[in-house]
Amino acid sequence: MSAASQAFHGVLVPVLTPFTSTLDPDTKRFTRFCHWLLTQGAHGLAVFGTTSEANSLALGERMSLLQALVEAGVPAQRLLPGTGTCALPDSVELTRHALAVGCKGVLVLPPFYYKNVSDEGLYAGYSELIQRVGDNRLKIYLYHIPQMSYAPLNLKLIERLTTAYPQTILGIKDSSGDWDNTQAIMREYPHLAVFPSSESRLLDALRLGGAGCISATANVNVAQISTLANHWQSEQADALHQSVSRLRSIFETQPLIPALKDIVAHFSNDPGWRPVRPPLTSLSPDQAASLRETLQGIDFQFPFTAHG
Amino acid sequence: MSAASQAFHGVLVPVLTPFTSTLDPDTKRFTRFCHWLLTQGAHGLAVFGTTSEANSLALGERMSLLQALVEAGVPAQRLLPGTGTCALPDSVELTRHALAVGCKGVLVLPPFYYKNVSDEGLYAGYSELIQRVGDNRLKIYLYHIPQMSYAPLNLKLIERLTTAYPQTILGIKDSSGDWDNTQAIMREYPHLAVFPSSESRLLDALRLGGAGCISATANVNVAQISTLANHWQSEQADALHQSVSRLRSIFETQPLIPALKDIVAHFSNDPGWRPVRPPLTSLSPDQAASLRETLQGIDFQFPFTAHG
Repeated sequence: MSAASQAFHGVLVPVLTPFTSTLDPDTKRFTRFCHWLLTQGAHGLAVFGTTSEANSLALGERMSLLQALVEAGVPAQRLLPGTGTCALPDSVELTRHALAVGCKGVLVLPPFYYKNVSDEGLYAGYSELIQRVGDNRLKIYLYHIPQMSYAPLNLKLIERLTTAYPQTILGIKDSSGDWDNTQAIMREYPHLAVFPSSESRLLDALRLGGAGCISATANVNVAQISTLANHWQSEQADALHQSVSRLRSIFETQPLIPALKDIVAHFSNDPGWRPVRPPLTSLSPDQAASLRETLQGIDFQFPFTAHG
Repeated sequence: MSAASQAFHGVLVPVLTPFTSTLDPDTKRFTRFCHWLLTQGAHGLAVFGTTSEANSLALGERMSLLQALVEAGVPAQRLLPGTGTCALPDSVELTRHALAVGCKGVLVLPPFYYKNVSDEGLYAGYSELIQRVGDNRLKIYLYHIPQMSYAPLNLKLIERLTTAYPQTILGIKDSSGDWDNTQAIMREYPHLAVFPSSESRLLDALRLGGAGCISATANVNVAQISTLANHWQSEQADALHQSVSRLRSIFETQPLIPALKDIVAHFSNDPGWRPVRPPLTSLSPDQAASLRETLQGIDFQFPFTAHG
């Protein structure tokens, strides 16, 4: 089996992390929601991404939530946790833990505190991580999100990393929103599993040999998006594309993470989904009302229930 | 005694963090250097700042280094460790630890992963930290470094924080390099201890009621800079200002942290000072040679020795 064929494909959800009223991670709501996303058709769960407020979590909290997922019966082979941090020893610890619980891969941010760092420094970040983890089960997906990390993973760097570690670096999430860049990666590195960060590019990506998408809004629309991924060659694909893109475009006008949490809270009738950690803030009542009104206009349904 | 009179003043050094050849924190070199900086006239040590590669360190590494400093006899009342991270529980843990070892204050970055966050979210970050630490010994210095954090602490936010926590928020490090902003803070909040991030603004700041400076280049020039701070009203002040500014301007053309480490390594004849953690990279031999040549031109001396 080639490295590429072992890679994730389809729709991966960067799962929201619920917090209790005292802002502690809410393990029960988290595991229930992860199970539900899989029953709705998610091909995998990219827990501890940007949408998950992962960098607002302590290392112990991340490992404890991951452990809880696996103990609650979520198959580790469906899990792609984020393990990249600012600090090399932290990234090593999270990555080793992810391997220890059996995760199929890890999604790795570059260190993101320093700005305007060199490609050489970013290369060293990944290379040191891979060597220190020192485990041939390690399968890395690069995480390109320059508008948040300010540490872009350009084509030359991808080339260097995939050449040095062809058995380890299996894919990339391109969250730049720059479709030209996503196309260039797919064209130049056909063996990489490439995931744009929006379902509005899912159909285009699949048609060009992309692997799927890892999208924030899959938290509230995974059934439809995964149907599109499963039937992208069917007659219904263009209509599904229109539909998922319409919902996506509504959320793109919102403070994304608080808006998604608000919608989960509202439709499941469970206000326990609303809290976010600083520096994020929950939607104001006016913002929440306006978002719900917009969603009524497209007859949006979200069948997750608080219990049972 | 008013809150302001308890505050730090003078020249604080954001101490470089040395790493071994395997990139582990080098406790021995670190404690020796901290002791030496104090003997050279440093009024305080702002360990674990940007220059210290603090965000490249794991929490345990930071706490272990701080503990080692105090055990090695560095007075905790001279220490202003950085304790602000992306994750609230981490900031709480580091801040509690700093208080437990007796540090006089803490320098607190806002959470820096998410970009374009609201003032409300940044306020909540500091407010939750203060309330969770829940200790009236806590004395916070805000850390405004928008070019790195992308989370600017504007005048309105400073107003709100100092009004809500007048006994806790004692000062601010303004690393923006925007002198108009530094002046505005000093004018609007005369009770805050305001520290620009460059000795080239030290004399101006002291003349306007500022507290001193917290400057990266104090790692290699603390004797002269602290002499300026101690004698800013003397006749020699303008000449000292010219001299420290000249050296500063040389380092401003360099990759700052690797350049400072290279100079410590070179003048103390101890290559063990050179390693940096990714995503930073050490100076190339050419860069290092060029920097040393420039420094020869101004007859720069750095009397730190590797041993004894």
